[in-house]
Amino acid sequence: MTDSNIRINGDRLWSSLMTMAKIGATDKGGCNRQALTDLDKQGRDLFVQWCRAEGCTIRIDTMGNIFARRDGANNELPPVLTGSHLDTQPTGGKFDGVYGVLAGLEIIRSLNNANVTTQAPIEVAVWTNEEGARFSPAMIGSGVWCGEFDLDYAYQREDKDGLLFKDELARIGYLGDSPAQAFPIAAAFEVHIEQGPILEDEGLQIGVLSGVQGMNWYDLILTGQPCHAGPSPMEKRRDPFMVLPSIQQRLYDLAAEYSPWARVTFGNISATPGSYNTVPETVTLAVDLRHPDQTTLDTMDKKFRAIVAESCATKDIEFSTHEQWQSPAVAFDKDCTAAIASSVKQLGYSHKAMVSGAGHDSVYVSRVAPTSMIFIPCENGISHNEAENAFIEDIEAGANVLLHAMLIMANKGA
Amino acid sequence: MTDSNIRINGDRLWSSLMTMAKIGATDKGGCNRQALTDLDKQGRDLFVQWCRAEGCTIRIDTMGNIFARRDGANNELPPVLTGSHLDTQPTGGKFDGVYGVLAGLEIIRSLNNANVTTQAPIEVAVWTNEEGARFSPAMIGSGVWCGEFDLDYAYQREDKDGLLFKDELARIGYLGDSPAQAFPIAAAFEVHIEQGPILEDEGLQIGVLSGVQGMNWYDLILTGQPCHAGPSPMEKRRDPFMVLPSIQQRLYDLAAEYSPWARVTFGNISATPGSYNTVPETVTLAVDLRHPDQTTLDTMDKKFRAIVAESCATKDIEFSTHEQWQSPAVAFDKDCTAAIASSVKQLGYSHKAMVSGAGHDSVYVSRVAPTSMIFIPCENGISHNEAENAFIEDIEAGANVLLHAMLIMANKGA
Repeated sequence: MTDSNIRINGDRLWSSLMTMAKIGATDKGGCNRQALTDLDKQGRDLFVQWCRAEGCTIRIDTMGNIFARRDGANNELPPVLTGSHLDTQPTGGKFDGVYGVLAGLEIIRSLNNANVTTQAPIEVAVWTNEEGARFSPAMIGSGVWCGEFDLDYAYQREDKDGLLFKDELARIGYLGDSPAQAFPIAAAFEVHIEQGPILEDEGLQIGVLSGVQGMNWYDLILTGQPCHAGPSPMEKRRDPFMVLPSIQQRLYDLAAEYSPWARVTFGNISATPGSYNTVPETVTLAVDLRHPDQTTLDTMDKKFRAIVAESCATKDIEFSTHEQWQSPAVAFDKDCTAAIASSVKQLGYSHKAMVSGAGHDSVYVSRVAPTSMIFIPCENGISHNEAENAFIEDIEAGANVLLHAMLIMANKGA
Repeated sequence: MTDSNIRINGDRLWSSLMTMAKIGATDKGGCNRQALTDLDKQGRDLFVQWCRAEGCTIRIDTMGNIFARRDGANNELPPVLTGSHLDTQPTGGKFDGVYGVLAGLEIIRSLNNANVTTQAPIEVAVWTNEEGARFSPAMIGSGVWCGEFDLDYAYQREDKDGLLFKDELARIGYLGDSPAQAFPIAAAFEVHIEQGPILEDEGLQIGVLSGVQGMNWYDLILTGQPCHAGPSPMEKRRDPFMVLPSIQQRLYDLAAEYSPWARVTFGNISATPGSYNTVPETVTLAVDLRHPDQTTLDTMDKKFRAIVAESCATKDIEFSTHEQWQSPAVAFDKDCTAAIASSVKQLGYSHKAMVSGAGHDSVYVSRVAPTSMIFIPCENGISHNEAENAFIEDIEAGANVLLHAMLIMANKGA
């Protein structure tokens, strides 16, 4: 058997997923296995046990990140890494994160079965607390590891019952002694369900990712002059709603201008004082702008501000724009993305180039190592929900793509 | 002195207003004299005492409405009525309602001083609980009197402490024995502060009213498909916000189409689930449509529904329109309005034809008697507020207009 003939075992991978899903299974078919709980410990223990059975060595760092290592022909070479997370949302699903971890395990099993030795070692990472459901912020395991957060900051995070991250990490036995900091990595990959509708809608199996959308969240506050709805003539009003149609329509037009990857979303809105017969004093609109190219996102930010200023000037409405959150765009490593594309081509799966609309551990990993991601469809684009579902054919396809992308990078120098 | 030379005494009227304003005076210069409280009793007692001093007979009906009567030359004729209310909002002003009552008193005083006898008798009404601040609904005194509400319904109204309307009416000594039902009236007038900015902005002293706006309140619920702001392509979204600009702009255009009296107000708005990174499932918009002509308001209602249906169809958005409240347009009596116009012309005050944007006791009175209203400016259009203010020149002008309109109608057959 040559390397190019190796395939993962889809049934075995599916079986691992379903076994893991029993830990924290919910009545509605989902999973509640939040970070650093007893259930998280059980999930980690099962993963470690499975990896040890495959001959891996296990390393646990001071953030509880787990690295399962399969030696290569030359162990001086930096490893090729894959991984994701085992923790879930309180009403999470069976695939988000877990798939990326167990696909890594399945690759090790498949390589062992095929008796293949890669040049560089391979490592499968389990990143701690990706979801951020129990301890905020999200992705704190990979975040500390890449240098985004201080270890002490992470240790002092509290859950809603006031329990400390560090205490809980120690309690479940995953406060490791390996330093939680980046080490040399040849290439890093993560396979994940899309958490969106694109692949399913287009009937495609694989998304080849080139990056992650940058996103800016704002609260836009429009302020006018409240007055009684009856006596106040329309032309004398300073009604913040009078500029809203122009602002919203021009922002949707902005999304069209930077199509197909620009996103403009108004997630929330409110008015004060908020009674039928009073022209509002304020209207507050939540604005979410996204684009995978940071330069384009910066341009969208500028145009957004200009649109607001121009529209408000027409009706003597005051405004203020409050930045609630910013997450810069991420461009994945071109060689890693090329390895995925090459792997997809070799395997013959239908595919398209994509960017991720959601954050992943790979965003932090990409700061310190060449990184890219693979998406597979999920049913109805639903995730963070007990109804989250994916199909075995896609689960298998994504893991095969991951396997061959890793092989390309792990044997690069050979 | 001929009738046409009679003028009310502005200083005396102002003084009455300021004396009444002491009952329930607030620190910020306003008034808190809610219906059927001890303070309301004090205000009523003072009014009755003043009227008796002028030789009026007092009639109190089973709703506590007070009628102070000044005999005419022919007491078989139905009276010419004026009046308003003495109750205030919790943080109300010194003029809303009270001005209309005390202007009526001032007219009786002026007629007495001038020794003028009108053909028909004159009556000054104090309507119970116009504001609706303590007992809901508003205008229940004139409402029962005109037949809109049952007496028993009114009696069972509770304030927030569970006290019954009837018990409180008896407690303050104003549960009268005259039946609370309409009696023959030759003409009814009410002078009131505008509670809006038009007269002040245009530098005018008198508004000659032809009616009261009809108003329709709706909750418009737009329903789409919630999805994640990042992965969901713009063109695949069923985002209720995508139809909002068109709906709002077309409704503002509708107001312009039926300018100057049409009003379109969006008083409130909300979205669910209401998070930055989720396209909303629903957007709920409070819509208030007004026009003084009921046929036009009905047309606006039809066009509103068509606009919503057309806009929603473009983006596959579902909608439902919930009628929250309807108040039909009121057209005041042409002869009464003509009497006011004639009086204004004779007195030489600057004026304009107007409609009322707010409800008044005259809305109910107009159902059973020829009725019209007179407006005077109030400072900055503010009312239902302790800062409510009006100027003595306007107070005097409005009462003079009322006096002469009443004289016209009271001497009509002479």
